[in-house]
Amino acid sequence: MTTLGMVGLGRMGGNMTRRLRDRGIEVVAYDRDPDVAEVADLDALVAALPTPRLVWLMLPAGDPTQQAIDALATRLDPGDTVVDGGNANWRTTVARAEELALSGVHLVDVGVSGGVWGYDEGYALMVGGEPDAIARLRPVFEALRPAEGGFSHAGPVGAGHYAKMIHNGIEYGMMQAFAEGIELLEAGGPDGIDLVEVVRGWQHGSVVRSWLLDLLVRALEDEDTFARIRGWAEDSGEGRWTVEEAIATATPAPVITAALYARFASRQDDPLAMRVVAALRQQFGGHAVRS
Amino acid sequence: MTTLGMVGLGRMGGNMTRRLRDRGIEVVAYDRDPDVAEVADLDALVAALPTPRLVWLMLPAGDPTQQAIDALATRLDPGDTVVDGGNANWRTTVARAEELALSGVHLVDVGVSGGVWGYDEGYALMVGGEPDAIARLRPVFEALRPAEGGFSHAGPVGAGHYAKMIHNGIEYGMMQAFAEGIELLEAGGPDGIDLVEVVRGWQHGSVVRSWLLDLLVRALEDEDTFARIRGWAEDSGEGRWTVEEAIATATPAPVITAALYARFASRQDDPLAMRVVAALRQQFGGHAVRS
Repeated sequence: MTTLGMVGLGRMGGNMTRRLRDRGIEVVAYDRDPDVAEVADLDALVAALPTPRLVWLMLPAGDPTQQAIDALATRLDPGDTVVDGGNANWRTTVARAEELALSGVHLVDVGVSGGVWGYDEGYALMVGGEPDAIARLRPVFEALRPAEGGFSHAGPVGAGHYAKMIHNGIEYGMMQAFAEGIELLEAGGPDGIDLVEVVRGWQHGSVVRSWLLDLLVRALEDEDTFARIRGWAEDSGEGRWTVEEAIATATPAPVITAALYARFASRQDDPLAMRVVAALRQQFGGHAVRS
Repeated sequence: MTTLGMVGLGRMGGNMTRRLRDRGIEVVAYDRDPDVAEVADLDALVAALPTPRLVWLMLPAGDPTQQAIDALATRLDPGDTVVDGGNANWRTTVARAEELALSGVHLVDVGVSGGVWGYDEGYALMVGGEPDAIARLRPVFEALRPAEGGFSHAGPVGAGHYAKMIHNGIEYGMMQAFAEGIELLEAGGPDGIDLVEVVRGWQHGSVVRSWLLDLLVRALEDEDTFARIRGWAEDSGEGRWTVEEAIATATPAPVITAALYARFASRQDDPLAMRVVAALRQQFGGHAVRS
């Protein structure tokens, strides 16, 4: 019987805890929200776990994850393992692993993909870290991953978060490609194109068939989707990191970069750059401007 | 029993003919290559078909398709239907339909996706044209499409080719997103990332799971793939048309455009533009150039 400590019972951590328990993993669950937490604090969580301990963090990247790691570093024993299932930057993960190693604690980084569908369908897991620590976590990974595949030991510590970052960068490009295609289906061609019918027809046999396409059909089949949703797209950081890594390694990534910039533009209201363009057109050509 | 004339027995038309016959469609097959043709010429093809005739063209877009349509226009009778399954520009298709209509002949445009896998898995069909003509072709579409889905009546004539063009534009963007992600997996992150393992892990449960990803894994699993293949990517025209339609409708398509330009760049050897950049850097800053 494998016992896992889970820290963070939000949308991801909560569903993952349910899936783990459904599949016979014992979970000691903590959240800073006392209404959700099942143990009082991290001391209680650590005390409840058999050694060597396995503690999975499913927290927002940044301060919440750092604080949990700092708190665990003073509470765990040599041989224990901390898993960071959040979307940390891989460079931060490597630094954290070095720090935890001073206390003899292993860090395993896991990029987790699957979103709200993961509870039912399983999560794709990209895992970085030492083989021994990963071997101890194997029953946990088996419970979380889909019935088939969906697991990779990507490499040493940091490789899991790096792989997840790239995965999300690719996702940005794919989503933007679909988005542009949909807008062009609406904007051009002969009058009377049945957009939903076309996209539904791509789900089988086409080159673009994909899970994102299936989600797109679900969105298009709900007639209210685009009445309800404004073209304002957040970015959660992984797209930016992908472009930063492209710059750090001098690797051209025009499509992923353009997809990221399209999200930035979606959040601008009358951006200064285009006011500059309009002002310059007026200056040299007397072209009309809109005020 | 439905009988179809098939003109063009290349990689696509040949496989489609086999799939149609496997599923009980009688096919009268013609190709300009006498070694492949099963009837002597278009006259023989037309003579062998019951009326109203159904003639499917599976030819390269441009002159070969135009010549076949011109030849058929003088040989077919009112009520007959020509299907263009090639990748014609949708504007050309609309013009051809108007011309054939003068002879009472219907044109149905079908965007066919599925490539060399279509024989086994079925082809995704995007169909434009009049409902009556499409109804007569229904048994043919049923034989060609996958077991589930893969068929759309996209709209009036031209809509099938427009939808296929957009499909291919999206495909350009998706392929380039994957391509950039793979190069970044190779270029960065901690030493020792297992690229093939990571990408294989994305096939189940991840957000980027897709048929293109499955093909990518096949390519990566063959260790010789990248020793054998140079980074030279052709474009077959549909990507260009997609960008042209983006311009015609003033619709931003940054990702599809960037993917197309990446292919152009892949075919350049020491492009003038970058020699200009290097020359200017030397002019203003005395920066080193390579000769």
